[in-house]
Amino acid sequence: MSLNLKTYTEHFTNPLYLESGRILEPYDIVYETYGTLNKDKSNVIVICHALTGSHHCAGTYEKDTKAGWWDGLIGSKKAIDTDKYFVICTNVIGSCFGSTGAMSPRPPYEQPYRYKFPVVTIKDMVKAQRILFDKLDIHRVEAIIGGSMGGMQALQFAIHYPNFAKKIIAMATTHATQPWAIAFNKVAQEAILKDPDFKQGYYDPDVIKEQGLSGMAVGRMAGHISFLSQDSMKEKFGREYKRTDGLYELFGKFQVESYLEYNGYNFTKWFDPLTYLYITKAINIYDISRGFDSLQEAMKKITAQLMLISFKGDMLFKNFEMKEMADVLKNIGNKNHTYIDINSNYGHDAFLVELDKFEHHIKDMLNG
Amino acid sequence: MSLNLKTYTEHFTNPLYLESGRILEPYDIVYETYGTLNKDKSNVIVICHALTGSHHCAGTYEKDTKAGWWDGLIGSKKAIDTDKYFVICTNVIGSCFGSTGAMSPRPPYEQPYRYKFPVVTIKDMVKAQRILFDKLDIHRVEAIIGGSMGGMQALQFAIHYPNFAKKIIAMATTHATQPWAIAFNKVAQEAILKDPDFKQGYYDPDVIKEQGLSGMAVGRMAGHISFLSQDSMKEKFGREYKRTDGLYELFGKFQVESYLEYNGYNFTKWFDPLTYLYITKAINIYDISRGFDSLQEAMKKITAQLMLISFKGDMLFKNFEMKEMADVLKNIGNKNHTYIDINSNYGHDAFLVELDKFEHHIKDMLNG
Repeated sequence: MSLNLKTYTEHFTNPLYLESGRILEPYDIVYETYGTLNKDKSNVIVICHALTGSHHCAGTYEKDTKAGWWDGLIGSKKAIDTDKYFVICTNVIGSCFGSTGAMSPRPPYEQPYRYKFPVVTIKDMVKAQRILFDKLDIHRVEAIIGGSMGGMQALQFAIHYPNFAKKIIAMATTHATQPWAIAFNKVAQEAILKDPDFKQGYYDPDVIKEQGLSGMAVGRMAGHISFLSQDSMKEKFGREYKRTDGLYELFGKFQVESYLEYNGYNFTKWFDPLTYLYITKAINIYDISRGFDSLQEAMKKITAQLMLISFKGDMLFKNFEMKEMADVLKNIGNKNHTYIDINSNYGHDAFLVELDKFEHHIKDMLNG
Repeated sequence: MSLNLKTYTEHFTNPLYLESGRILEPYDIVYETYGTLNKDKSNVIVICHALTGSHHCAGTYEKDTKAGWWDGLIGSKKAIDTDKYFVICTNVIGSCFGSTGAMSPRPPYEQPYRYKFPVVTIKDMVKAQRILFDKLDIHRVEAIIGGSMGGMQALQFAIHYPNFAKKIIAMATTHATQPWAIAFNKVAQEAILKDPDFKQGYYDPDVIKEQGLSGMAVGRMAGHISFLSQDSMKEKFGREYKRTDGLYELFGKFQVESYLEYNGYNFTKWFDPLTYLYITKAINIYDISRGFDSLQEAMKKITAQLMLISFKGDMLFKNFEMKEMADVLKNIGNKNHTYIDINSNYGHDAFLVELDKFEHHIKDMLNG
């Protein structure tokens, strides 16, 4: 069967009440669906995306060469089987791929919000999705699945809308962002903020996409250190030079340097710097126990079947952070959870790259 | 007894032949001594400094509040006892604290070398020190001790001047800089190079010291992530905010952010950006097996008694990198080495901070 990829934009005129006390009104949410919704709407799976991800998680657009970011996982006969499930992935509020964000026009003006855009939290992102699903007349879903910031959303769903999903799969994520992740984000934020081409937020987005914003490139390079693991860097780059002729040993460029440069500068062509500031802020302030007396109290809210997947080589969200959640669940007598620590040395990116190491767990969870 | 701190500048008119094939001529080396040289010059200990260190490793200058970087280790009755030993620490060639570097006047002009300064390697730094010691009529020393880039120098001494030191202590270092360390350096280098105030190397050093160079601050922030460990960050900062009044949970600054900012910007007041590029380059291209068929062949040159000390929490030079050296030494039948892995969760900075965890090993090595 075909993937049946469809892209929609939903416009909301009612205000979205944010955790900060501010409101967003009106706002748009862009989302993509795959597969076919069955009659009683009981075959929905929600996919949540990460920091730089989008609603485009599967299939390939006509003029594109690159497929969606979880294409290996979602499709006919794949782990998340679109012959069976109706899959929805929304671009989060605050992002730059169509949903309302800092560079969207600030009503009633045509100029973008820029710094007038409110601080958005992971909880806000989830609330906006919940409202969208209400509008689509979907009130209960089979599963919510996400990695990294997507995993944060999955967990927030589990705690704040405990009856919404039967199953939750959160991977390569945490219950509260730890100082090393905040530190990596800080480097990127500072690099962006201090770049004169950023013009204190008043840059021209077209110019940035054309020229690249070196501050964001530098920040992204730091990010890439956290996405890889030491094992994968050693295997991938070692001490190899980009070219090995003659004097390169003293004067040449290491392959790891070239890799960081390429990925850093390429990133500035497709991601918006102000959005990077807002989304990293959302990640930094994420803490699922906010509003509860403790992590225990927060996790007591969970009624869905929960699967936690961590990756041994993950430098950004360490496997022990997910183990902590599993321990809490055990302590509070939750009988409906599984914790899996995947033996990968790929680093944080494992949830995007090493599908073969965890897709069977997703399949089992969805079938079982 | 007093520390007997003395600072000297030695001027060399003969060319220094560098690994790159270029020469440095003339050049200066600044160095500091502590304790008293005995009659037969048999009580010398050489200390080698790290990337941002200097020759000032012990004692406190009259107008300073801060002591030298290894003051806890070097002095009367301390692990490196200046009542007994005559301690010498030189500022490496290429650095910015008095020895000839990129911002020194380029003869016959008064203008600094800037990019015309040659690439300097760790081997070059060691060679320049060896020539200085020759001039001081010191041809054999009791020990050479260093951490991080200082450890690299100690190892280069051991391999290239095997008869020069009786004992070598190298800590928190490696035999060849690995891609993750190169990656951290790359972020800093790129951040400096792309800062418009850096003016492609033609900045005014006084202006930089006054205003701070945000590119270097950003780079240093990335560096600090590698100096700390995740354990130490969790203990030191957790998810605490700098201030905890009211809305700070959503809008405030995390303590870890504040720490990085302070250390990043403060760094630009006392370190030169062009020097940072040159010294990180030297660290990146460091590989003690360069010029040999293998690491084994290089390490076969070592005749001194060797002590290798790694720190479990070190993120920059992982403990297994030093373990690799110890394994090689074992394989080639070296009976004169010790490898110690210190149980510290302090990260790379442990060699500067957690003296109590390793000073007894240094004492034992010097006495034994």
